[in-house]
This record gives sequence, structure tokens and C-alpha cells, in this order.
Amino acid sequence: MRYLMTFSYDGTNYNGYQKQPNKNTVQDQIEGALLKIFSKEISIHASGRTDAKVHALNQKAHFDLEKEIDLYKLKKSINSLINDDIYIKEIEKVNDDFHARFNVVEKTYIYKLNVGSYDPINRNYIYQYNKELDIESIKKAIKYLIGTHNFKSFTKTDIEKDDYIRTIYSIDLLKEDNLLTFTFKGNGFLRYMVRNIVGTLIQVGENKLKSDDILHIIESEDRKEAGKTANPEGLYLKDVKYNN
Amino acid sequence: MRYLMTFSYDGTNYNGYQKQPNKNTVQDQIEGALLKIFSKEISIHASGRTDAKVHALNQKAHFDLEKEIDLYKLKKSINSLINDDIYIKEIEKVNDDFHARFNVVEKTYIYKLNVGSYDPINRNYIYQYNKELDIESIKKAIKYLIGTHNFKSFTKTDIEKDDYIRTIYSIDLLKEDNLLTFTFKGNGFLRYMVRNIVGTLIQVGENKLKSDDILHIIESEDRKEAGKTANPEGLYLKDVKYNN
Repeated sequence: MRYLMTFSYDGTNYNGYQKQPNKNTVQDQIEGALLKIFSKEISIHASGRTDAKVHALNQKAHFDLEKEIDLYKLKKSINSLINDDIYIKEIEKVNDDFHARFNVVEKTYIYKLNVGSYDPINRNYIYQYNKELDIESIKKAIKYLIGTHNFKSFTKTDIEKDDYIRTIYSIDLLKEDNLLTFTFKGNGFLRYMVRNIVGTLIQVGENKLKSDDILHIIESEDRKEAGKTANPEGLYLKDVKYNN
Repeated sequence: MRYLMTFSYDGTNYNGYQKQPNKNTVQDQIEGALLKIFSKEISIHASGRTDAKVHALNQKAHFDLEKEIDLYKLKKSINSLINDDIYIKEIEKVNDDFHARFNVVEKTYIYKLNVGSYDPINRNYIYQYNKELDIESIKKAIKYLIGTHNFKSFTKTDIEKDDYIRTIYSIDLLKEDNLLTFTFKGNGFLRYMVRNIVGTLIQVGENKLKSDDILHIIESEDRKEAGKTANPEGLYLKDVKYNN
């Protein structure tokens, strides 16, 4: 029996989602609870990793159990065993061939950035950039990123990886008072891709890059051409969509 | 020379604003920075205390220095010495007879409450009530609280205190999705008063109390008649106003 869980977490106190030796991760927390409940190791398979300090509003992971179980009770049990900075929102039964990573058709990330003065209350939840940015130039630059491109300039190059082509469906930028919220929708995102795009858009907003420099950065397929990786605390995995 | 500082803080990791033996407080942080800068003890006098885990958006405190000083540099120095969950927003010169507590004419508090499902990301910033409430009944109950009353039922009784009369100018209740935000304005608030009022309004919203029971609770001058003290993490000192 295969099940899919939807969960949210505050990434502040974790070394990211994915299990690593001697690190405190979100996956460790949830698998630790499953081990206590079922007295055996049960692996969960997420839609993808999130980095240290990155948050999730609706992360998804599948796992297998030998038999049918009361899903409401299981959800309650897991939530009572994990830290209060992670919350299992829902568990549902899925087909045996469903895969939380391979079946993704769309992911949504949001990135929050404060262009006003330093806000200690949101220091772990909104990137404290704390300077003004040229929003119009950023909006122009965004247009060059939409569509299907080789995003090698915006990720960590990996010898074993040869597919850097992804499709970005949309990037919306909303300004409410001093809060900028970028919403990215795409068929998938490479490692650090959202944060590297935001870091590059910040340079556009600082007028250190021109809006159409984005074109050349994409074409270069060279990480050194793009901007710095924006801080992790502003990033949230918002939604993961699957084909029905 | 007397100075007034405006500062914000995330109260999560503090035993409240006010200095206490062997406790970690916001006042300790700021006075510790002043001690390092001036190599002598300088006391700060705030508009009032806030309890453990309660936040402030614009707390105010005055302090005295022997001579004129570059206030921009002082602000930067203090901010570089205190934890990143406290931030000095502004320091200004005031009259020698100004007092940050005695001269208050209006205080604004906000209280945030989540009536939707548990949100781990805001667990320290919005009270996770996580059930629905009857908003219309709460709005009716609020009307009985506005004005000048003896609020003894809503505070911790203290043998040395005999003045429980305060004036509440307004209580606004805003519902945006699952977030309730109460905004309280008054000439002053007794210890735990906002949290005890919110706790009582929650009982009204649960239909355990009727809206007009508030009248009898006020008249009783008896803490036991009012509701539980609502959790601290939803409370923010928003503004402090002085006569010009």
C-alpha cells in the first residue's frame, strides 16, 4: 500500500529536508516517528529536497505500508511524535506506482524579501535585504526567464548531471509595503535555481545588471555569470502538483 | 541629556522585557550593549514590561547620557552588539523631564490568532488556536469592553495596587482567511489584561459565554469570572504614543 503525505515545516532549525549522516533533518524527524509507530524502518520519498533553513508549506512524500491503516490516527500519531516545527497536514492513499518525485508536473516556490528596515521578528522567514530595489527593472528581467531554457547558469554544476533544461511557467512579483514576494511556477527547479535567480534579479534591481543581461547569462551556461545565491530563509516550497 | 529609543523584538527567546535575576531579558541585552559602549552602567526605562514570548514592534525606552553623542552611530553600535532578534529602530533626543512610562497617552497592542489548521512556521508568532470561532458573538462582546472601566477581572490582583481603572479606546477585529487580528488601543493596559480579554473573547467565540456576560464579568471585579489567559506568542506591543 502506498501513501502520500502533505506536510509543512519551518526549516530554521534543520540541515535541510534530506537525511544526511550526523545532521538534523526533516526527513529524520518523520522517519523517526514512523520507526516508533511501526517498530520498523519506513523510508519516505519526497518531491525533492529543500536546503538548510528553507521552509515548506506543502511538501509531499510517499511511503509504503504493508497494510491498510486509519490515516487520521496515523497523522495524529506522527504529529505527536515530531517537533512542533513540522506538521503533517494530510495522508492519503495513492496508486502503487505513484512516485512523489518522478510524477511531479508542477512546483511552486515563493521567495520573500524585505526592502524596508530590518525586522527581527521575521529574520528567519523573510530575507532581510533592507535596501530599496528597482522593481520595474526586475519585472523586465523576469520576462527573459519564463519558458524552456537551459538553466545551467543558475545551478550547482554536477559532473553526473547533463540535463539542465527546465520550463518556468510564470514568475509573479508582488510588492506589499516593504515586502516583495516572488512566486515561481515551473515543471521543476534545479538545485539552488530559485535562490540563484533571485540573487541575479537583486543585482538587476540594484542596477548592477541590465534587465536583458539575463539573456546572456542564460546563454553563457556559466554559473559565474549569474548573481549570488540569495539567502535560504526567504524561500518556501509552496505547492507540488501531480497528474491525476 | 535624555534620549528615547524605539525598538522591536522577537520575544520568543526571552523571559520578557524586564530585567530579573538570572533571566535572559530584552532589557539585559540592550543594557549590556550600553555597558560595553560606555564602560559604565546605563539603565533604560521602558514604556512598560512585556511578558515572556510576547513581541514588540515599537517598544520605547528612555535613558540618560552625560553628553551629546552621534545618535546614528550609537544605534549602529547597539545593534551590532545585541542579538539579531532585537533591533533598535531609532534614537532621538527628548526633554530632560520626559519619561517613557509616565508620559504614555496611548498604547496599541495586537493579538494574532489562527482559526485554521496548525501552522508550524508561525507557531511562535500567531496563537495556534486551530478551531473555528463565532466571530459575530465576539464582535458583540467587544462593545462592552470599550470605554472606561474597572478592569480588575482581567488582571493579576496585586495587594499594592488599587487603581484598576483604564480606558479602552477601541478594539478592532479583522479576519483575513484564517487569521484573526485584534487591535487594542487604550490609555494603558494592566498586567495580562490584553491576554485575559482575548481569553475571555475566545470563550464567547466558543459560545461558552454570551456576549453580554462581559458586562457581569467587568462588574464582578473578580479574575475568576473571566476566561483563561491567552497564549503569549500571539501578542505584540505595536505602538506607544506620547503627548507632544
